[in-house]
Amino acid sequence: MIDANNDKKPLEPSSPIQQITYLLRKYKLLEGLVNLQDQQDQSHTESLVQKRNLEEIQTYLNQLHPADIAHILEALPLDDRLLIWSLVKSEHDGEVLLETSDAVRATLITEMGNQELVAATEYLDTDEIADLVPDLPQDVIADVFRSLPIEEREQLRAAMSYPEDSVGALMDFDVITIREDVRLEVVLRYLRRLEELPDHTDQLFVVDRNEQLKGVLLINRLLVSDPDTIVADAMTKEMIKLHPGDVAQQAANAFERYDLVSASVVDDTDKLLGRVTVNTVIDFIREKAGNEALNLAGLSEEEDIFAPILKSVKNRWGWLAINLVTAFIASRVIGLFEDSIEKLVALAALMPIVAGIGGNSGNQTITMIVRALALDQINTSNAWKLLTKEMGVSLVNGLVWGSIIGAFTFVIYQNAELGLIMTMAMILNLLLAALLGVLIPLTLRKLGRDPALGSSVMITAVTDSGGFFIFLGLATIFLL
Amino acid sequence: MIDANNDKKPLEPSSPIQQITYLLRKYKLLEGLVNLQDQQDQSHTESLVQKRNLEEIQTYLNQLHPADIAHILEALPLDDRLLIWSLVKSEHDGEVLLETSDAVRATLITEMGNQELVAATEYLDTDEIADLVPDLPQDVIADVFRSLPIEEREQLRAAMSYPEDSVGALMDFDVITIREDVRLEVVLRYLRRLEELPDHTDQLFVVDRNEQLKGVLLINRLLVSDPDTIVADAMTKEMIKLHPGDVAQQAANAFERYDLVSASVVDDTDKLLGRVTVNTVIDFIREKAGNEALNLAGLSEEEDIFAPILKSVKNRWGWLAINLVTAFIASRVIGLFEDSIEKLVALAALMPIVAGIGGNSGNQTITMIVRALALDQINTSNAWKLLTKEMGVSLVNGLVWGSIIGAFTFVIYQNAELGLIMTMAMILNLLLAALLGVLIPLTLRKLGRDPALGSSVMITAVTDSGGFFIFLGLATIFLL
Repeated sequence: MIDANNDKKPLEPSSPIQQITYLLRKYKLLEGLVNLQDQQDQSHTESLVQKRNLEEIQTYLNQLHPADIAHILEALPLDDRLLIWSLVKSEHDGEVLLETSDAVRATLITEMGNQELVAATEYLDTDEIADLVPDLPQDVIADVFRSLPIEEREQLRAAMSYPEDSVGALMDFDVITIREDVRLEVVLRYLRRLEELPDHTDQLFVVDRNEQLKGVLLINRLLVSDPDTIVADAMTKEMIKLHPGDVAQQAANAFERYDLVSASVVDDTDKLLGRVTVNTVIDFIREKAGNEALNLAGLSEEEDIFAPILKSVKNRWGWLAINLVTAFIASRVIGLFEDSIEKLVALAALMPIVAGIGGNSGNQTITMIVRALALDQINTSNAWKLLTKEMGVSLVNGLVWGSIIGAFTFVIYQNAELGLIMTMAMILNLLLAALLGVLIPLTLRKLGRDPALGSSVMITAVTDSGGFFIFLGLATIFLL
Repeated sequence: MIDANNDKKPLEPSSPIQQITYLLRKYKLLEGLVNLQDQQDQSHTESLVQKRNLEEIQTYLNQLHPADIAHILEALPLDDRLLIWSLVKSEHDGEVLLETSDAVRATLITEMGNQELVAATEYLDTDEIADLVPDLPQDVIADVFRSLPIEEREQLRAAMSYPEDSVGALMDFDVITIREDVRLEVVLRYLRRLEELPDHTDQLFVVDRNEQLKGVLLINRLLVSDPDTIVADAMTKEMIKLHPGDVAQQAANAFERYDLVSASVVDDTDKLLGRVTVNTVIDFIREKAGNEALNLAGLSEEEDIFAPILKSVKNRWGWLAINLVTAFIASRVIGLFEDSIEKLVALAALMPIVAGIGGNSGNQTITMIVRALALDQINTSNAWKLLTKEMGVSLVNGLVWGSIIGAFTFVIYQNAELGLIMTMAMILNLLLAALLGVLIPLTLRKLGRDPALGSSVMITAVTDSGGFFIFLGLATIFLL
């Protein structure tokens, strides 16, 4: 017998996604087969094989980590995604929803009934519910509130009150607190009475009667110390205290810099409110980095790769519109010089070079400055130094690349003056790019805006219109 | 008395950088004062005040966390940076060097003698030394090797052998191992005999006589379990096992997805080699995200913001050169149509719009695809679906924006045919952008290259040259 699949690579279902894709394909082929048989014998037999196949998918799915299920859902086209979603056990629903991207979460939530949604939150902590709330329908939120005990209701209300990108939004309430006057022996016995410790418990928080944070007892310290030691003698008072209103980025910086696993969150009176853990910080860093890349490219928000076309169009609309306006302006700048171009049509072919290289160079400067701002490396005392350095880099680049382009122009058009004007225009446009590459992000920061947002579009607009104006202007004055 | 500084904000030395900047400024003003006095009384008095000032800086500096010192050094211009660096105590040198960016580290190392460098490594673990080695002079590396005990020499050799961006490069050797047949009581006593546990010890590794990994005992489990339990009964066998040759990104994905604090690294025979901890992973994620942004903007590597001009020029050289070539090509495409432009000079003013919006749209597509590739959301079974979706988005955008631009063209130039050609050119160039926005990163990946690297430059090159060609070509055929 000849194996028809002989020349094909065997499917290696090594990753969960590949496994599910394989099972789904099998399911669909069976569906096709069943439909074919149905047509032939007109008997509409129940498809037992198919059912068994779905069960196989379900079994496989529900032994996976919620993060893996979320990952699979994100990689599936909409119809497959909803089929798989319907097979996920409801006790995993909440955690899977937490792990998916906002865009994909929305597609899943629209497919769920209100009761299902309320049930999904049952297995979640209040800080996790707070993360879901913005995506839930209003009446579901009300039902969720009603389903919670009073204390958790308060926690949820608190968690929901913190703005996105604040420390409060990253905070959870899974803190173990101890008193400072007990022996470590007692602490160990206390812990042993708990069934399990919250994830990422690398320290216990030492508080007084008023819940005020006095210090932290590192688990590693607890393990190596003599059990007869008093907590007060084993705890550290040097610790990171975050405040719920702090910018989340600051917390992320602290975690990165001081290699933290968890950190306390306190209010203005040092009362312990909760903690932030490193896994939340990693998610924050990843999301932040992703959003920056998306914003730079002109996408408003994370996009479900299988979003309907019109939804995607909407996501990309804003920046394209801005780009359109700047392109119009650049076009009108060229329009000013139509007479010059008519007299010397080579100008039309050369002008995009000046604009393009200016844009590239300006984007290099701006990226460096935005990064240095994020790392808090720029202040009033060194800004001037930075500006002169960037202008210096542009001058060197302008002289070198400008000369090459000038020579190229001379060779192609046999016009030495035109070559010289190309060189001059290049130098001037690169200087303009450096100047604004430093000033735009610094100004945005001064105005309290995110220096990354839109910087790239603005610098390109300036180097385009500026480049056209400088080059065509010089040519009009000196050549024509 | 009138306070001269009345209208100035008081200096609030809240952050270490501000404090150091303040102290440095004071030091320099004193220096100026001393020089002035010297000139007057010609006596060259020793500047006691100045000395005391330097001591103040030194005292402040050496109580800071090494990461904070590194941060300060990065934010200072070269001369100030070296002054401050000379004040850092030599026992902190190694850790500070580890925390600085590559570019800044190089400036610090060139200022250090060989003996100083060898001394700096004394306080570091072997995996940390391995991180420094690429930046050290050859003879220093030899000296460092000689200074190590044999076991650590082997570790260092192993750590140095792993390629950058592999799990091996992230690994450290700070593992605590236990046997599976002892009681937890014994484990607790064993830990108590250690002076301290390595940072990020959230689990102990259970190995047999041959160092083969049998399971892990979570510290949290250890704390809540009955001390009479046998390790084998308390340990988990379901654990993440990394391999030193794995891509570091995979480890980062695992840490993010499964919320890990540490993970074991084993060889092919399951022998425990070391571990990866979450702090290293965070540094990796940050650096990776930073490098991506830099590469997109056409910077080869992280740049010291106060690098000498020529060094910066070199860092930006490569991408500018590529950009120059693509700009030349685009220019020659326009050159092909000089006759057409001469006949209808409006073409020159309109063509950058077609090219610019195509570039923007293509970059949106490519960013999305690169991101989806990084998240492992794209496979052969859905690539086709993605392509048709992106083409659909482009068609809608082309129809809408193309019509607006067409109308604008008609209003400005009173030429309906020209408007129609603008609309058509926009649609076609956006479709081209979508097609290549999907194909370029997928092809790069297929060829085993980083799909992010250079994607943006390539798509812009295509939409520029393509946009000019489509627009001018259509105009030449239908208008002239």
